[in-house]
Amino acid sequence: MIVVMAPHATPDQIRDVEDRIIGWGYGVHPIYGAERTVIGAVGVPEADKAHCLEQLERLDYVESAIAIIKPYKFVSREFRPETTCINVGSVSIGGPSVIMMAGPCTVESYELTLETAKLVRSLGFSVLRGGAFKPCTSPYSFQGLGVEGLRILRAVADVTGLAIVTEVMDPRNVEIVSQYADILQIGTRNMQNYDLLREVGHGSKPALLKRGMWAKIEEWLQAAEYIVSGGNEKVMLCERGIRTFETHTRNTLDLSAVAAVKELSHLPVIVDPSQGTGRWSLVEAMSRAAIAAGADGLLIEVHPEPEKAIKDGAQSITHEGFVALADSCRSVAAAVGRSLA
Amino acid sequence: MIVVMAPHATPDQIRDVEDRIIGWGYGVHPIYGAERTVIGAVGVPEADKAHCLEQLERLDYVESAIAIIKPYKFVSREFRPETTCINVGSVSIGGPSVIMMAGPCTVESYELTLETAKLVRSLGFSVLRGGAFKPCTSPYSFQGLGVEGLRILRAVADVTGLAIVTEVMDPRNVEIVSQYADILQIGTRNMQNYDLLREVGHGSKPALLKRGMWAKIEEWLQAAEYIVSGGNEKVMLCERGIRTFETHTRNTLDLSAVAAVKELSHLPVIVDPSQGTGRWSLVEAMSRAAIAAGADGLLIEVHPEPEKAIKDGAQSITHEGFVALADSCRSVAAAVGRSLA
Amino acid sequence: MIVVMAPHATPDQIRDVEDRIIGWGYGVHPIYGAERTVIGAVGVPEADKAHCLEQLERLDYVESAIAIIKPYKFVSREFRPETTCINVGSVSIGGPSVIMMAGPCTVESYELTLETAKLVRSLGFSVLRGGAFKPCTSPYSFQGLGVEGLRILRAVADVTGLAIVTEVMDPRNVEIVSQYADILQIGTRNMQNYDLLREVGHGSKPALLKRGMWAKIEEWLQAAEYIVSGGNEKVMLCERGIRTFETHTRNTLDLSAVAAVKELSHLPVIVDPSQGTGRWSLVEAMSRAAIAAGADGLLIEVHPEPEKAIKDGAQSITHEGFVALADSCRSVAAAVGRSLA
Amino acid sequence: MIVVMAPHATPDQIRDVEDRIIGWGYGVHPIYGAERTVIGAVGVPEADKAHCLEQLERLDYVESAIAIIKPYKFVSREFRPETTCINVGSVSIGGPSVIMMAGPCTVESYELTLETAKLVRSLGFSVLRGGAFKPCTSPYSFQGLGVEGLRILRAVADVTGLAIVTEVMDPRNVEIVSQYADILQIGTRNMQNYDLLREVGHGSKPALLKRGMWAKIEEWLQAAEYIVSGGNEKVMLCERGIRTFETHTRNTLDLSAVAAVKELSHLPVIVDPSQGTGRWSLVEAMSRAAIAAGADGLLIEVHPEPEKAIKDGAQSITHEGFVALADSCRSVAAAVGRSLA
Repeated sequence: MIVVMAPHATPDQIRDVEDRIIGWGYGVHPIYGAERTVIGAVGVPEADKAHCLEQLERLDYVESAIAIIKPYKFVSREFRPETTCINVGSVSIGGPSVIMMAGPCTVESYELTLETAKLVRSLGFSVLRGGAFKPCTSPYSFQGLGVEGLRILRAVADVTGLAIVTEVMDPRNVEIVSQYADILQIGTRNMQNYDLLREVGHGSKPALLKRGMWAKIEEWLQAAEYIVSGGNEKVMLCERGIRTFETHTRNTLDLSAVAAVKELSHLPVIVDPSQGTGRWSLVEAMSRAAIAAGADGLLIEVHPEPEKAIKDGAQSITHEGFVALADSCRSVAAAVGRSLA
Repeated sequence: MIVVMAPHATPDQIRDVEDRIIGWGYGVHPIYGAERTVIGAVGVPEADKAHCLEQLERLDYVESAIAIIKPYKFVSREFRPETTCINVGSVSIGGPSVIMMAGPCTVESYELTLETAKLVRSLGFSVLRGGAFKPCTSPYSFQGLGVEGLRILRAVADVTGLAIVTEVMDPRNVEIVSQYADILQIGTRNMQNYDLLREVGHGSKPALLKRGMWAKIEEWLQAAEYIVSGGNEKVMLCERGIRTFETHTRNTLDLSAVAAVKELSHLPVIVDPSQGTGRWSLVEAMSRAAIAAGADGLLIEVHPEPEKAIKDGAQSITHEGFVALADSCRSVAAAVGRSLA
Repeated sequence: MIVVMAPHATPDQIRDVEDRIIGWGYGVHPIYGAERTVIGAVGVPEADKAHCLEQLERLDYVESAIAIIKPYKFVSREFRPETTCINVGSVSIGGPSVIMMAGPCTVESYELTLETAKLVRSLGFSVLRGGAFKPCTSPYSFQGLGVEGLRILRAVADVTGLAIVTEVMDPRNVEIVSQYADILQIGTRNMQNYDLLREVGHGSKPALLKRGMWAKIEEWLQAAEYIVSGGNEKVMLCERGIRTFETHTRNTLDLSAVAAVKELSHLPVIVDPSQGTGRWSLVEAMSRAAIAAGADGLLIEVHPEPEKAIKDGAQSITHEGFVALADSCRSVAAAVGRSLA
Repeated sequence: MIVVMAPHATPDQIRDVEDRIIGWGYGVHPIYGAERTVIGAVGVPEADKAHCLEQLERLDYVESAIAIIKPYKFVSREFRPETTCINVGSVSIGGPSVIMMAGPCTVESYELTLETAKLVRSLGFSVLRGGAFKPCTSPYSFQGLGVEGLRILRAVADVTGLAIVTEVMDPRNVEIVSQYADILQIGTRNMQNYDLLREVGHGSKPALLKRGMWAKIEEWLQAAEYIVSGGNEKVMLCERGIRTFETHTRNTLDLSAVAAVKELSHLPVIVDPSQGTGRWSLVEAMSRAAIAAGADGLLIEVHPEPEKAIKDGAQSITHEGFVALADSCRSVAAAVGRSLA
């Protein structure tokens, strides 16, 4: 922690700040500059650093207080240098293969889900996505089939041998969703739903944590820290676009965050170009780009007839489109020394 | 709904779109322009409009599909022209008086809470704020006193005659928080926590719905619609700053949203300049500005010794600061024909 | 300057960084922490600090390099504690009065301009705004009357006794605009048009520097520093809204920036709620709020018939609207101990 | 143009809007809905559409006015379906090859520039980048060598056979920069510097137009339209990151904009991952991703000793790094059916 004193700070005020820092268990190293005094606080005390910083910044005679150590630990690559691999069914997420997770935005029926699942399987992929509990901006939209949707997903998975990733929104539903799903998706709107994070952290199912559309990379990693520090180390991160001023795309897919998170953390990173762009015609290009940027997996919305999909038709690709996407993604994966599975 | 056909759309494709629109129960009004055909869809069918738009946009031969009617109903001023008044204890929120809600960010102890509550009361105000369940970016921060904090708030309220506003984060806690609090605060991170919104919507306690730091005004009103359409009409909106590229302030307090929401909706609007700026030295100026912009209330973090506060010390003002703020806010309220209560 | 070494930095690497810092003329103060070494650099050498920081951050063994001293000098309140007053015609901008600058977005004709100018004068105000050179998003929009517009503004000013503020976009036009105008407006798109800033900095006309819609407060002050360090100290800043994800308003008017800049700088601050909101119906509320937040002046678009205005009709208020606005702004100005002139 | 009348609009008010629309030369097609009347305006009159929309939105009885036709013409793919190829020296930008443009951020000396130019040449590339006139946030930073820098670039280009891309900031310098450079770069801060755009539009040198860090795709294309409608059709667009709330990267590189612009426009699209990320360690990953997303070229900052670079060292890669980048980019280019030249 570095504390920059205000230019007008008196010796007594400097001593006051030093006393506070010492009181929290830090060692103190003042640097007397030409225009300002700077105080270095050394050590790793028990005190909550974020609040120490805030308390210091409240003082008239402190200009700013700056954290030096990153606000997350278990998820950092400093803590664990090798990338975490999460085994789900027959695949290993975070390993040499880029993992394709595909399926309908929303589970509509057993038949439609099965149709897409068979395609996913036939292309050699192992994970089916599909929504049973749906977060909807409007209370008047279809909110998903709920437990009935979970049952359909499980039945389709059992028939096809696919693993299932599906969203859980309510901490009260973590248990039941865990009974049906192989990976629990935490959606963008719930990235800082701490009670949900805690509940998933106490379980044992792998979690796919989407980035909040407002969240800095650092905050995303802190959300992951909630789950890991709760005991569940099987967390994968999912970039799905952030909110910016651009309106042509639904979100701005931040692929530089993929490369950045791979440096900062050992957790695998998935990319969702369907939500990330909101436009089906951009999904294939951004899938290729995600793999080229270093993603460990993709989450793709596929529907046999997107123009009849109950939800998110505008961003879903057809079965034909998915075959083409898989083909061009395989080439790019090979170009960066990986396979697509 | 207006559908803009692509320039290359054929007569068959135009007819296909018309058939879909008719199938949903709309009437169809095509306009054949020089470069594009535009199809107007008239009527208010049962179909989910958002998904109709998405399905149409998925078609190659549709350039865009535009909603005409606003995606919320009960919260709109069109639905109810007069401003909603919500009675809490002795005050009426949304009425002629601007309502001051003040207190510590986090409940730390009975004594500290009582000290600030007495100040609030002595200045003639009626609502005490204070956090018992705290949303924290880091899992290692103090997460609040929980139910013990609720008990302290209630005890202080009963001694001083103040009403209580406090946050609920988990749908499982709506019932217990409702037993202690007079107003349920839904925090910025939970604005689209739909299970929480539904739970609050099924209750009868007034809700204070903070704007998601990523949320457009339209989405904020749709979140309020979740609560109102669930049966609980006592919703007040709270502007608390949105996330932008500016880093000097913690958020960018969007006061134009106050004036805009007063046009679009009949719900009362509160402003939180403490969270909105993250800097105590800006709180008084922004409190005055909020009242001048038309706010129906303020939510202010006050602490006897902010530089020792467990949380959010940097944005809390002292008791002396609060007296000064109340004084200058009274003047501005009078200048716009209101009082401060 | 504070340099945080990477956790894995070796003693040789730490010495390398120290040598570089000493080479630039700083003194060196290392702090050896439990997990990282931090090096304080003390002194005010001639070297360009921004580039020293960048060079250090390029090193594998440096985690981050942090500036301590603000990147502007002459415009800071540290440099000059008292607020700068700029005298234009009969008014003093930055003094006890809030200065109203009003008029049409674009100069259309002598008659229309005179009509609005007379209204401005009759209400006791002294500055007329109006555009002769117009920045337009589309090359097919009307680009302003140019020099003919300047002549109209001057003629109207001479008849009514008002001072003129008008935009200059091209460094080649600074001389001619200076012949006609009393204040040179630098538009939001040109906030970092450095050749224009330098040209205005070498002149003697007061400048009104609008905030870039993408600019952090710190960058805005650095842009002002270009003008002041060039020799022209008569700079006023103008908040006009920043670009965010919100689409209901054209920009997000950042009134907290007004209060913040008043702390950081001695320059006067003007607010433009017309551009800031893009909606005439919000202009009066945001004018009041701007004054309550501490603005030294307002810039308002007024047109006798906004629905026939060549440009920006949607955000212009009528003569009747302006009379009402002036009235309610006077009350708020009085409530904060100022007058409106 | 579609005009949505307010719910309370009277027949007279509807007729008034119709009369205005007819007066501008449009045909009128009203649609009387259950809750609102919508008026379609058909035809392509001479009137400035943007201002018609604004004037209509100013009316109390109009809820919104929506443009149907895109606000640019010559740069749209609708106007010219095949991608534009721009020949510069031995390469064709927009053709089957992805064009690498690399070199130092800032020209520091003949020797350093030559050293990097030889590397660029030896890897089979044909375009050298380098800054002579530099836009700097601080007036105290090195502003570039100016004309001396241009002379160095030309001399190096003549020795190595490379073409030159360099920035022009001031309309007064378009002529002299055109004498030395092969491609004129317009920087992000000048994307809406209309006098500069006009000057470049009247010349014949190819232009590389960087996206304003605040600019929507639509505004970027309108800026390109300024140049093309001025007579200069040789425009390439350059995505270089937009400003968002994320602070880990300097900007957020928006690769979905690459794929989107390739749909909307026939102009070639270049990507600058150096400025886009501001971190050297992310440049290679984002270069690969840019090619996978469909970019026609890359703009890369390379320096023999980045930690001694006068400017932007933090985002420059070394010669060794550039060799590796070229290698992995060649693989990805091949995977998407292109070569790297």
